[in-house]
Amino acid sequence: MADPVFKRLALLGIGLIGSSVARIAKQRGDIAAEIVVNARTQKSLDRVMELGIADRVEIDPAMAVEGADCVMLCAPVGAFADLAARIGPHLAPGTVLTDVGSTKQSVIRDVGPLVPAGVHFVPAHPIAGTEYSGPDSGFVELFQGRWTLLTPIPGTDEEAVRKIEALWQRCGAQTERLEPAHHDRVLAIVSHLPHLIAFTICGTADDLADETRQEVINYAASGFRDFTRIAASDPVMWRDIFLNNREALLEMLQRFMEDAQAMARAVRWGDAAYIEDRVERGRKIRRSLIERKQA
Amino acid sequence: MADPVFKRLALLGIGLIGSSVARIAKQRGDIAAEIVVNARTQKSLDRVMELGIADRVEIDPAMAVEGADCVMLCAPVGAFADLAARIGPHLAPGTVLTDVGSTKQSVIRDVGPLVPAGVHFVPAHPIAGTEYSGPDSGFVELFQGRWTLLTPIPGTDEEAVRKIEALWQRCGAQTERLEPAHHDRVLAIVSHLPHLIAFTICGTADDLADETRQEVINYAASGFRDFTRIAASDPVMWRDIFLNNREALLEMLQRFMEDAQAMARAVRWGDAAYIEDRVERGRKIRRSLIERKQA
Ligand SMILES: NC(=O)c1ccc[n+]([C@@H]2O[C@H](COP(=O)([O-])OP(=O)(O)OC[C@H]3O[C@@H](n4cnc5c(N)ncnc54)[C@H](OP(=O)(O)O)[C@@H]3O)[C@@H](O)[C@H]2O)c1
Ligand SMILES: NC(=O)c1ccc[n+]([C@@H]2O[C@H](COP(=O)([O-])OP(=O)(O)OC[C@H]3O[C@@H](n4cnc5c(N)ncnc54)[C@H](OP(=O)(O)O)[C@@H]3O)[C@@H](O)[C@H]2O)c1
Repeated sequence: MADPVFKRLALLGIGLIGSSVARIAKQRGDIAAEIVVNARTQKSLDRVMELGIADRVEIDPAMAVEGADCVMLCAPVGAFADLAARIGPHLAPGTVLTDVGSTKQSVIRDVGPLVPAGVHFVPAHPIAGTEYSGPDSGFVELFQGRWTLLTPIPGTDEEAVRKIEALWQRCGAQTERLEPAHHDRVLAIVSHLPHLIAFTICGTADDLADETRQEVINYAASGFRDFTRIAASDPVMWRDIFLNNREALLEMLQRFMEDAQAMARAVRWGDAAYIEDRVERGRKIRRSLIERKQA
Repeated sequence: MADPVFKRLALLGIGLIGSSVARIAKQRGDIAAEIVVNARTQKSLDRVMELGIADRVEIDPAMAVEGADCVMLCAPVGAFADLAARIGPHLAPGTVLTDVGSTKQSVIRDVGPLVPAGVHFVPAHPIAGTEYSGPDSGFVELFQGRWTLLTPIPGTDEEAVRKIEALWQRCGAQTERLEPAHHDRVLAIVSHLPHLIAFTICGTADDLADETRQEVINYAASGFRDFTRIAASDPVMWRDIFLNNREALLEMLQRFMEDAQAMARAVRWGDAAYIEDRVERGRKIRRSLIERKQA
């Protein structure tokens, strides 16, 4: 077995993402020699010990990061500023501070200024997920064949970046480095906008008259079902993502609304060729996904 | 084995839906004693014979319905008027004419006037589907545990309606009778609008700059992937559905756009409570689906 990348990994937050990392690290042994876990509630920490996916749990984040050479923020992105303020003074020089947040400019804005000198901050985002949350929802295959995007700011210690790449590669992911603003635009279209739309259409359906709402549920088999699956995700996590990727999300939503208006117009005026063309694009993108094994 | 519901069932169109019905009818034997299949192309008919899911194939729809006591239209809804005109003169009195089209008011409008006296017209719609099409895509489990909605106009022969209900129940579906306009509204929100949105967002993504488009495909794992799956469906079928459920679809799209605008506003102004509330509704609807075993 290769040497572990880190001596002690502290995970702050242990939901779907954190507990998947913990499970993989426990199983492989070559990611960190020791795993310390912090969460907001004692209930989650008790569950972590029952599951046997940590060596130690700490309800105080400052205690959790003490002596760790890698600290990974795995809470909703809206909690990062507060967490960083609390752990900052307890991070030893040379520690690698990283995160798994779904937005990256906001994380650099919120966490960056609180990182002490000598601590290396490497923002990252594993592009993998399900609609489930909490310590029970994690599983070792989550990142297999998926991407983890790193968005280090220029001048970041190369060794620290390489270690976070090694960590994610050992989790089964491919890694790529991206400029933070570019990351946020791409994620706005592939993930944040689809979620916003799925939440919205569920709300639209929920607002229909009582009789129709029952039928929506009875006859959901076609199409709508997939939207509700996406929309079943954690409200706090998504609220934080939307508010922390505001600019890019609003831009993509604006483009989408214009396109939806154009579709409405085509339906109203019976422009069959336009409709077929838009539907064809969906198929084309789907085919590309299948070719790239992302479908 | 119970007596077959029909002596000779003619399927006009043999894609996902038609070929699923044919497979079930062949396997069970109690739906129709004989199955005759018609399609637009000889290629599909040849394939049907290879698959062994019909007793006989006919490239001329008029020949296919000759002597049939049940005729089921399984082509895209835009083709129904033409098909009905061609087969009308060849339908024997007492024949039950039915369809599987995803829109019902348009079918009644297009087919109704072409039904000869003494022929019983029973519009129906199985609420089940996948994104695949063609004679190879059908399978016997497709309708299992799903609903088939019947929208007969008042005064339709009760015996004919019961036979179509029996047919679908033997296909594994539950049946329900609905008023055609009500059907079209419910389907607009559970199926037609979700598909229109999925096609649209794929188009929006496809319009992004070249570099971003590649990344859309690379990082599609979260959220977007489900939209592309929905958007992979047949363009002609969906074009026909949109154009034939125009009013209800435009109404639902209008409601959705207003709700999306409200979400955009909440994101812009940081209205966390509003966003959380909308996300919660998604979860609530999802939970109802799971309780009703439609998830
Ligand atoms: N889920 C996805 O699809 C996905 C994909 C990629 C990246 N991400 C990102 O990964 C992060 C975690 O997501 P997840 O799905 O793993 O979340 P999750 O399952 O909801 O778990 C969140 C964890 O963070 C803790 N936490 C919540 N609020 C906190 C606070 N204010 N301060 C400290 N800890 C807090 C929770 O503690 P308790 O259990 O004690 O409440 C829990 O352990 C988010 O930043 C998200 O953007 C998610
Ligand atoms: N797919 C779904 O999810 C779903 C669910 C419920 C209801 N429906 C409804 O079921 C019907 C069929 O859908 P499907 O998915 O089974 O379609 P499909 O797989 O695309 O098959 C369509 C069939 O109709 C034939 N056809 C096409 N255009 C025709 C024309 N102009 N005249 C005569 N025949 C023609 C095709 O013949 P060739 O093979 O020779 O081209 C093919 O056999 C549609 O009305 C649809 O609205 C679909």
